[in-house]
Amino acid sequence: MPVNLVAPEARSLLPVAGVELGVAEAHVRKPNRKDVLVVKLADGTRVSGVFTLNRFCAAPVLICKQHLAAGTGIRALLVNTGNANAGTGNDGLARAQQTCEALATALQCQPEQILPFSTGVIMEPLPAERIIAGLPQAIANLKADNWADAAEAIMTTDIVAKGVSRQLEIGGNTVTVTGIAKGSGMIHPNMATMLGYIATDAAVSQPALDALIQHAVNRSFNCITVDGDTSTNDALVLLATGQAGHAELTEADADYLALREAVTEVAMLLAQAIVRDGEGATKFMTIQVEAGQDEAECRQIAYAIAHSPLIKTAFFASDPNLGRILAAIGYAGVADLDVSKLKLYLGDVLVAEQGGRAASYVEADGAAVMQQAEILVRVVLGRGEASARVWTCDFSYDYVKINADYRS
Amino acid sequence: MPVNLVAPEARSLLPVAGVELGVAEAHVRKPNRKDVLVVKLADGTRVSGVFTLNRFCAAPVLICKQHLAAGTGIRALLVNTGNANAGTGNDGLARAQQTCEALATALQCQPEQILPFSTGVIMEPLPAERIIAGLPQAIANLKADNWADAAEAIMTTDIVAKGVSRQLEIGGNTVTVTGIAKGSGMIHPNMATMLGYIATDAAVSQPALDALIQHAVNRSFNCITVDGDTSTNDALVLLATGQAGHAELTEADADYLALREAVTEVAMLLAQAIVRDGEGATKFMTIQVEAGQDEAECRQIAYAIAHSPLIKTAFFASDPNLGRILAAIGYAGVADLDVSKLKLYLGDVLVAEQGGRAASYVEADGAAVMQQAEILVRVVLGRGEASARVWTCDFSYDYVKINADYRS
Repeated sequence: MPVNLVAPEARSLLPVAGVELGVAEAHVRKPNRKDVLVVKLADGTRVSGVFTLNRFCAAPVLICKQHLAAGTGIRALLVNTGNANAGTGNDGLARAQQTCEALATALQCQPEQILPFSTGVIMEPLPAERIIAGLPQAIANLKADNWADAAEAIMTTDIVAKGVSRQLEIGGNTVTVTGIAKGSGMIHPNMATMLGYIATDAAVSQPALDALIQHAVNRSFNCITVDGDTSTNDALVLLATGQAGHAELTEADADYLALREAVTEVAMLLAQAIVRDGEGATKFMTIQVEAGQDEAECRQIAYAIAHSPLIKTAFFASDPNLGRILAAIGYAGVADLDVSKLKLYLGDVLVAEQGGRAASYVEADGAAVMQQAEILVRVVLGRGEASARVWTCDFSYDYVKINADYRS
Repeated sequence: MPVNLVAPEARSLLPVAGVELGVAEAHVRKPNRKDVLVVKLADGTRVSGVFTLNRFCAAPVLICKQHLAAGTGIRALLVNTGNANAGTGNDGLARAQQTCEALATALQCQPEQILPFSTGVIMEPLPAERIIAGLPQAIANLKADNWADAAEAIMTTDIVAKGVSRQLEIGGNTVTVTGIAKGSGMIHPNMATMLGYIATDAAVSQPALDALIQHAVNRSFNCITVDGDTSTNDALVLLATGQAGHAELTEADADYLALREAVTEVAMLLAQAIVRDGEGATKFMTIQVEAGQDEAECRQIAYAIAHSPLIKTAFFASDPNLGRILAAIGYAGVADLDVSKLKLYLGDVLVAEQGGRAASYVEADGAAVMQQAEILVRVVLGRGEASARVWTCDFSYDYVKINADYRS
């Protein structure tokens, strides 16, 4: 069961001027479910994307990068679920290109003005003809207040649809930021995986938009892990239609910082939603590492904790098994770490210091924290000013069940 | 259930001249089980050890390193289960030292001639007084043909005791190599963890012995993973009593290579036994990465596969879920990897090439391989001559059960 996560009400996902969304039941893999999404963008919309670093990146990821590099402006996104078009070689590229051509014809633009995204089973040929056959239905229901349907259309094994909106004022105009995402692990069973779309009607210069997405992703999607696996298809796209009516923002503007904060918050909540809906998750954990020499070592330690199957099963069992956390800190790879100087907290409870259990610690206090659905693990390294934070979930029987049974 | 692993028959573990072993039921943590082992070494025995790189290394590991550095010769090993004496700070060091002093007094040697080892629960004070009280019993039953009892005495959550012997001829003399090990994960629930002891009556110079253990560990204990966690207590010790009657070997001797091969084989079989007895293991997997530019990148890819919970659950389910393996290869961090050049085999079955599924592949062939208890995953990178091999096991419901329930 997702941890403290419910699907957003349709009316809570606010339209973004210049963005229309339409969905179709195209039977990509299964009948009777929304599995194709078209997002139509007003002319002049600026687009920035970050994509998986996996060397086996999927065909649509390669094409997205090409089309963004072409610089002719993006007019639509085309997303399908049910098939990831990953591990499909040249044939996969050709099929993805066919879907772009079909949508470009329908929308009267160029194929390189379409960004394709696929999520679903790996190593199966993309049924391009079924996606293309579904396009008229998706185009027919294009509308601005369709974000909730869109959030649902991009789900794969997600239990709950994920979306969030924020508004702010810029130069007397109301600016909206709305985002949706899917994923319930950094990688799924044999699914591939994390997709996120955040749109705003703010006007932002391209360099500022590129900086903004990097800032937001570093504080959101790059801070989560369910199982440590990095998907072949991960993608986050930030769209700025420029229709809010204010002057274009650059990084030097004070309003840019306000927009950046709103977009980062939307990204963070979407990323956290992915962890809350993590496969088999019963707990939501924040791993916070403080007082390190630099952010890199803090992240290294946070991820060592967040990736340890031993720690994640202990959280599932509500077992305050501190030795496992100390061991993970110890093997994280910070070579000159002086373990006698660090402090470990579970919630507010000091559990370890001076290389061992804190004198004040009693197991009942740790156990009380471990019973909670949201748990903070704090490591204070005592060697600097840097910090990092990672969100993850526990590791349950259901994780094994979901991943062992998925294809059968 | 352990995968193709049975406890060694007592008579199959051959005595090593100059080594006597005695065990005691000292009630370190639980009554009525062998939990203390004393290994007494003939004067002049050469000792070499490799220890965990975990920064939170346990008190006995620190003391072992000090005592080996003292260079006064090692006369005995003292091993306890039930308590790891890790995460115990200065108090842990003092307690470990007390046990060394007590054994040194009993054996009429110096405390720095004792190497202490502990395995068991982390962050609990070592009951030094109970271990010391058990020493007379262990010393009373010191004998050369006690390896099977010793293998049993060092078990924690191991299901099966682990030991193996080999013999070879050096200069007309029979030389024996006998080893025992414990561990059923690189780290246990809240146990700490892998211990290995290999003894030979060969005569080997200290530099050659140090080189030998490094060679052996790199091809054995450094090639296994159950859950990717590195323990605070891991230790492997190689003992050479020099009583076989031949002249002392240096690295230049041809016979040194024969000995190295025998010791490496013993180490490899012990390491594999740990994986076969891996927590919840139902399958034994060999991950072999070939034709890489260097061994490091081959190991990187092999470990990415061996550590992926997604792949390990797929093996548990006998699901030939190739996309997960390709994804792991892709995210292993080999930045310039050309995925279109690699080939992936399950056993003898070619499953992927040219960036996607092999044309000849049918799922029934992959499924047949996945049904087996011992599975070879072969990745041929097509970019060089180097290779690496890693052994691991699958990830089952029982892994979660063992690790979630252990302390309750």
